[in-house]
Amino acid sequence: MAKSDRISSATDQRESGRLQVISAIRKAAEIARIDIAKKTGFSPATVTSITSELLAAGLIEEVTADEASRDSKRGRPRVALKIRGKAHWVAGIKVSNRTATVALMDFVGDTFAEYETPLPHSQLSGEAMVSFICDTLKMAAERAGIAVEDLSGLGVGVAGIIDAPRGFVYWSPSMTERNVNLRNLIEAQIPLPVFIDNDANLVAKAEQLFGLGKSYRDFIVVTIEHGVGMGIVIDGQIYRGTRGCGAEFGHTKVHLNGALCRCGQRGCLEAYVADYAVLREANIVGFATGNDSFDDKLDKLFRDAKAGEPTARSIFQRAGTMFAMGLANIVNIFDPELIILSGERMQFDYLYADEVLEVMKNSVVQVDAPLPQVKIHKWGDLMWAKGAAAFAMEGVTERAIRKISHDVLQH
Amino acid sequence: MAKSDRISSATDQRESGRLQVISAIRKAAEIARIDIAKKTGFSPATVTSITSELLAAGLIEEVTADEASRDSKRGRPRVALKIRGKAHWVAGIKVSNRTATVALMDFVGDTFAEYETPLPHSQLSGEAMVSFICDTLKMAAERAGIAVEDLSGLGVGVAGIIDAPRGFVYWSPSMTERNVNLRNLIEAQIPLPVFIDNDANLVAKAEQLFGLGKSYRDFIVVTIEHGVGMGIVIDGQIYRGTRGCGAEFGHTKVHLNGALCRCGQRGCLEAYVADYAVLREANIVGFATGNDSFDDKLDKLFRDAKAGEPTARSIFQRAGTMFAMGLANIVNIFDPELIILSGERMQFDYLYADEVLEVMKNSVVQVDAPLPQVKIHKWGDLMWAKGAAAFAMEGVTERAIRKISHDVLQH
Repeated sequence: MAKSDRISSATDQRESGRLQVISAIRKAAEIARIDIAKKTGFSPATVTSITSELLAAGLIEEVTADEASRDSKRGRPRVALKIRGKAHWVAGIKVSNRTATVALMDFVGDTFAEYETPLPHSQLSGEAMVSFICDTLKMAAERAGIAVEDLSGLGVGVAGIIDAPRGFVYWSPSMTERNVNLRNLIEAQIPLPVFIDNDANLVAKAEQLFGLGKSYRDFIVVTIEHGVGMGIVIDGQIYRGTRGCGAEFGHTKVHLNGALCRCGQRGCLEAYVADYAVLREANIVGFATGNDSFDDKLDKLFRDAKAGEPTARSIFQRAGTMFAMGLANIVNIFDPELIILSGERMQFDYLYADEVLEVMKNSVVQVDAPLPQVKIHKWGDLMWAKGAAAFAMEGVTERAIRKISHDVLQH
Repeated sequence: MAKSDRISSATDQRESGRLQVISAIRKAAEIARIDIAKKTGFSPATVTSITSELLAAGLIEEVTADEASRDSKRGRPRVALKIRGKAHWVAGIKVSNRTATVALMDFVGDTFAEYETPLPHSQLSGEAMVSFICDTLKMAAERAGIAVEDLSGLGVGVAGIIDAPRGFVYWSPSMTERNVNLRNLIEAQIPLPVFIDNDANLVAKAEQLFGLGKSYRDFIVVTIEHGVGMGIVIDGQIYRGTRGCGAEFGHTKVHLNGALCRCGQRGCLEAYVADYAVLREANIVGFATGNDSFDDKLDKLFRDAKAGEPTARSIFQRAGTMFAMGLANIVNIFDPELIILSGERMQFDYLYADEVLEVMKNSVVQVDAPLPQVKIHKWGDLMWAKGAAAFAMEGVTERAIRKISHDVLQH
């Protein structure tokens, strides 16, 4: 949900000011105080005061800008500020349907270690999921030569319906139980604050901080892998809905009483577009039988389609057309600046084919203004883990900022 | 688009503070300074300073609270603040497909005059629309015993695709031309600032200020009359999208290559749910032929359905089911606190029938948390005109607030 623009108490204002300064520094990588003032609209005096606090807290550091960025008129070196990488380290874990991927990230946002391990089963109980996540985190830390205690936070991304503010999992395809307070359970096992979100929201977070969404206030991310997900960024904030179960693009209905979905309902977009939906069709015509793995079957079907096999083509074409219709609905509702199509699965090659985007264009409300941009960003589980780490970093940053207020009040 | 929460220059902060105080007063009708401090989070000193400015500018006034609300412990009368009704008067015009309705409103938000007049034709050229709006405004003012010059602003609501920040009409079913800068054209004719928006956004604005949305930060309004509209309120702001053509719920596709819509595309929700869509079906079976008016035909069809005539029932049932599917998609995407179904046309009785809401519930992502509330709010053109007036009032308030900053800088 978008953040309130209500100016609150003086402390809140000061914290909001610090957050804006630190995020301006993060965005710019290196930036002089005077440019922070320009970006934030704060007075130079306020920027000096806030940056002193951030320097004292060890969250940022000074750098002397290199030759290239010297003040060309006067020729003297300018002092810039940057995030202090060692200030905090965070971990992000993405639990996908077969593996878990971990990214360890410093406070600048640089990933200094990665780790991947298979899930013991495709679905785990709440308890087993907690043990698995904690063990995976420990192993990743050990491999990187650090202790879990050296970290300041853990971000966890799981597929499903998550109430992020509560760290509560209503339902996840990776879990056998519903209604698990995953955050509390993990925090009982490790000495770190834990931040949990829907994996598609974490991709949106990663796109916003490191990816194609960097310079946009409003954009939509659509992810396709085993399911279809969506992350909505409005006014620079992830929009989550009231109960944490908005942005369920994959379960919007595109056909009344249509194809059966994994969720048990009918006509969901996912039931036409996700990999299982494509293989269901292939099965009917005997294309995807036998003992090949799920991925191998999908690969073969895709190769057949590419080679011009009419039924295989028709399967992907239907998926693509339904996907185009879903995308057009997103444009008709959000009219965003940018839509990012994100994911790693290969049917994507089909789903963003020119003809699919053409169908989308023809289903969008027609005005004499350019259409929203649609950009493709393929990435794997590691980027999702980075999104989880970035989510943790946000939480850790907010805590660090609040700690400054607390320390100030103590003195 | 949601407003940025960026704290900007000192002047902006001061203006934002004034806006928050005035809107706290507007919301409460009457409120003591200390309660404004509680609501806004400002210090009592800041509230005193801001309210002095607002009093000096004549935007608010002091009232001595009545007996009932006296401070019970000390028994002395408390001084409260209220909006000064005479500070500004605004007009709102809603242009519907057959009539235009005008509401004249004081600064408190009370409507002190209404006026309705038929459109000369169902579609007007840009020039004819401007003349019609200006003439209607003059007539409404004259009837109310005031001059157009006594007003501080005019809000205009038209159906169609409107870029509100520019006052630009991409397309309207009420106009023969596309791409009309309606605001500039009207402002060239009358000495008032003009504010133009999509009619559904104005209903959302009216619901937010005077209606069922008063205590919600996030809600969705769906309007059904000649078309299907939507207004999205996120974090207290109307969300409009990048080009001003978001929230086109009526043109989201609910069936691939489905029924033909007035917009020329196929499968739009509107093409199943709007009044013309219902009559199209009725025509097929000879139910809505003859020389009766459009409204009379619709009335008769509805009476037949209510009386149990199977084909008439089936027509409304299909519309209702498609509507339920569309509503479920809104819940799946926005997970809002509240959905308000708003409009005046009678098929609504069918569209919010319990069985329709039941279908909606079964198409929503299932979590163990209560569903968003769905509330019905029937109203006529006058309420839409009030929404247009409220939109103008917002603009006029912002101008008045900026004028204070300007006046302060002059001294």
